[in-house]
Amino acid sequence: MMQSPRDFRELLEVKWDEGKFVCVGLDSQLEKIPKSAWKEDTRTTLVAFNRTIIDATKDIVSAYKPNPAFYESHGDEGWAALRETVMYIVENAPGVAVILDAKRGDIGNTNVQYARAAFDHLQADAITVHPYLGRESLEPFYAWPNKGVIVLCHTSNPGAAEIQGLETGGEQLYKRVARLAAGEWNGNGNSCVMVGATYPKELGEVRAIVGDMPILIAGIGAQEGSLQQTILQGLDSKKRGLIVNAARSIIFASQDADFPDVARIKTQELHDAITKAL
Amino acid sequence: MMQSPRDFRELLEVKWDEGKFVCVGLDSQLEKIPKSAWKEDTRTTLVAFNRTIIDATKDIVSAYKPNPAFYESHGDEGWAALRETVMYIVENAPGVAVILDAKRGDIGNTNVQYARAAFDHLQADAITVHPYLGRESLEPFYAWPNKGVIVLCHTSNPGAAEIQGLETGGEQLYKRVARLAAGEWNGNGNSCVMVGATYPKELGEVRAIVGDMPILIAGIGAQEGSLQQTILQGLDSKKRGLIVNAARSIIFASQDADFPDVARIKTQELHDAITKAL
Repeated sequence: MMQSPRDFRELLEVKWDEGKFVCVGLDSQLEKIPKSAWKEDTRTTLVAFNRTIIDATKDIVSAYKPNPAFYESHGDEGWAALRETVMYIVENAPGVAVILDAKRGDIGNTNVQYARAAFDHLQADAITVHPYLGRESLEPFYAWPNKGVIVLCHTSNPGAAEIQGLETGGEQLYKRVARLAAGEWNGNGNSCVMVGATYPKELGEVRAIVGDMPILIAGIGAQEGSLQQTILQGLDSKKRGLIVNAARSIIFASQDADFPDVARIKTQELHDAITKAL
Repeated sequence: MMQSPRDFRELLEVKWDEGKFVCVGLDSQLEKIPKSAWKEDTRTTLVAFNRTIIDATKDIVSAYKPNPAFYESHGDEGWAALRETVMYIVENAPGVAVILDAKRGDIGNTNVQYARAAFDHLQADAITVHPYLGRESLEPFYAWPNKGVIVLCHTSNPGAAEIQGLETGGEQLYKRVARLAAGEWNGNGNSCVMVGATYPKELGEVRAIVGDMPILIAGIGAQEGSLQQTILQGLDSKKRGLIVNAARSIIFASQDADFPDVARIKTQELHDAITKAL
């Protein structure tokens, strides 16, 4: 497999050394972009908005996490914007990891192509994946040793427990997935897991299972109290190991022309709240 | 939600009335396209190849199933080709359903965008989805009543059973998923399931659970014997209800300039084998 000069885990470790844990979710839904930031077409608007958010936050974050759904809803224009956005991060915020929150998962033959899309075409440093087809299907992602493979474990949505909470062999499915992702599936050492911030108890359980593996925390709330509880549940034995994502609460915090300043303030507030919790 | 003049279930029913069950998987991996069919660029090559396959097979199939992985590995160019391919099917094979085998699955807010990409931008008639985030997350797909929501149940890959075969509450996970997809999840009557042809026993079990719901059978083999066994396991009470997909064994059956003829012959062979099994 092609070696990349960037290594997802190394990028994270450097940021953790600097005390940076925040990940900004670039869920750049066109209709929610402040009207003052609209340009002549969809692609240009998405890229310009993302650049502005990146420039306003890049010195206090550990990662950016674009979700392709908000781009592919615009087809080829959206995909062009997604690629330009990742290129901009790599060039202008070179130490900041790019997590493609694509939640992909197909048979192996097809995952080869998804891995190419994420790691070769887009140059992302990590991708989120579904566990449902098992380890054998995920091999084409794991085969890129410098890239992070972030397995969905317990998601943030209200109905997450319907499947993920099913009891199987004496433990719930999300715990089984965590155990597999941290164990048998992690032959290349590039496995990570994702847990929703809305489930702090489950986050603590997952941390106990996965050891010092990186955990991507999605859907972080605005309330500092619950945030600090979440952070404490999620930290590893070295008081790090977390990627704390916030999207809408940062990038769409203002609908006015001051949105870059407000995005920075919200990012700084999250950074400070995490620092306080440590 | 926007109403479409096309209805996935109705399109299938018409084809089943005509005795047509074959679905051709447009997994049009660029490097596997016969060199004689290569055009000036990636987009043009993908579209021209797909058009040729479609023209050669459209009168004997029930559906086409492009897998976006083989397009998004080429980024915006690939997505443009994917859209042009679907448009070509809608215009030139208007009774043939388009299944986007995207295996998507995110939280609800994000699935709204994936549904837009599949049903509005691409104009697909159905999409395959992961069950891991539960019914609540899939609501944005189910909310399009004319579109098919095909839930991954038991996939075709060798390692499928690692997660899907886990025992939960006295039955294996894939059976639980089948039961949910056919029951509580099917308020709009547009639910379907996907089962790999490589697991005929499990296919029979799923059919017993889902009643007359459409089943997409992926990964059909070349051997007529096992094919007939599979078909018999999968048929519903009216001796229909199946979408039988073959991809590489049809579209890449010849690497020579005769590939359209060979693709048609392979499609016809599969059609005839299904007819014989009925």
